[in-house]
Amino acid sequence: MAGDMEGVLLDVDGVLVESWRALPGAVAAVDWLRGEQIPFRFVTNTTQFGSEALAEILRDAGFDISPEEMITASVATATYLRTHHPGAACFVLAAGDALKDLDGIDMVDEGADVIVIGDAEDAFNYENLNRAFRMLMRGAKLVAMHKNLYWKTDGGLTLDVGAFVAGLEQASGVEAVVAGKPSPEFFLSALASIGLPADRVAMVGDDIASDVQAAQAVGMTGVLVRTGKYRPVDEERIELPTPVIDSIADLPRLLA
Amino acid sequence: MAGDMEGVLLDVDGVLVESWRALPGAVAAVDWLRGEQIPFRFVTNTTQFGSEALAEILRDAGFDISPEEMITASVATATYLRTHHPGAACFVLAAGDALKDLDGIDMVDEGADVIVIGDAEDAFNYENLNRAFRMLMRGAKLVAMHKNLYWKTDGGLTLDVGAFVAGLEQASGVEAVVAGKPSPEFFLSALASIGLPADRVAMVGDDIASDVQAAQAVGMTGVLVRTGKYRPVDEERIELPTPVIDSIADLPRLLA
Repeated sequence: MAGDMEGVLLDVDGVLVESWRALPGAVAAVDWLRGEQIPFRFVTNTTQFGSEALAEILRDAGFDISPEEMITASVATATYLRTHHPGAACFVLAAGDALKDLDGIDMVDEGADVIVIGDAEDAFNYENLNRAFRMLMRGAKLVAMHKNLYWKTDGGLTLDVGAFVAGLEQASGVEAVVAGKPSPEFFLSALASIGLPADRVAMVGDDIASDVQAAQAVGMTGVLVRTGKYRPVDEERIELPTPVIDSIADLPRLLA
Repeated sequence: MAGDMEGVLLDVDGVLVESWRALPGAVAAVDWLRGEQIPFRFVTNTTQFGSEALAEILRDAGFDISPEEMITASVATATYLRTHHPGAACFVLAAGDALKDLDGIDMVDEGADVIVIGDAEDAFNYENLNRAFRMLMRGAKLVAMHKNLYWKTDGGLTLDVGAFVAGLEQASGVEAVVAGKPSPEFFLSALASIGLPADRVAMVGDDIASDVQAAQAVGMTGVLVRTGKYRPVDEERIELPTPVIDSIADLPRLLA
């Protein structure tokens, strides 16, 4: 099945890198895709960096990649806002660098039409969360760059966007729209970017829900990789035919 | 039915006071209970003050009340910890004053057995929430003083304990034990304090779920009051026979 694939989407953290260092065989796998002229994109929910900075970090780690070949949750958020809320005043709770991807969005501190939540790190404080909450209670919409609950940093497991969005959703009764994975729109925009239909493209990820099952939901072949946040129990949750590989180093063999 | 009641539990915020000022008829209603020698207790999830300070605030507002006549979520938390986790090392995320009710609890910053969350206000920051999260991921238990999602302050609607507990629960997969309302243990401890069985006691509150239905669940008569956070839609959620009064000023007529 996977041998029929004509294109690939690759999750980044836990698949290609950990703590921003390339995993064994990851650089070679991407070079192989390039050499075989197989269209690919990096698809990531990382919002602590903008796409320019992220491409630079990945190039430093050895990957042959340009910003245009990455679909990030912050770029997807900008696209979502321009499409669904053109001209809206947005209160954006996110770290500095991801804000660069929101160029042209009208950002305000009060009276926002839309609350946008990314990885805000220390800006996830009582004052900012209350500010967002009060605007939600006055009718603002809620957009989450993604809903990942936590991730692994050099400092240990760390709360991510999803944990703060969960609290805001419960308190306000407003449900968030998710711009990044596992949103179908996110994957469809990545497919459009490589110009292939879902049934010709594999999505490789370490998150059984956000990467694998979400890709399967739009008709792609979800491929689970046994690195990053993968745990053996994830394989019990597999519902559709799902290739499982030990690491991204096995990608050429899978696609051959 | 309510005429058979021999004792009363009274919620505080939204029933007796708003922004710590007595609601019309509230002081007189409490004086009437005292005059009629009807046993009563104030039962509150407020954890921004300890019980001593809270009694003083309420006395300043005109109420004839002593700390011993109040069952607060922070006192209930101390009781819960001493009963279920004697000697446990606790990481307590709460504002300074409520900590006084936790006298004798072993408080630590790292390596806690139990994470305790109260109204921490500005201490609800990224560093503290991550600290709590990491200990939960290493096996610590989670105790919430209560799970109220928000409350009304002079500054407007404000996120409360429940919003932060929700994020920690979702991210860690650890479910919190609630020490305050609507925990059955909380109401049973208030009943023990006045020495009456549940079916002889009315619980008056403005929260249809945490006050009224939670009291009914342990066999008390839940009384809904149309002040505070009450909204007309709450009356559609009434399941058991539930007296509804316009304000606490109507309590004497209800019990007569």
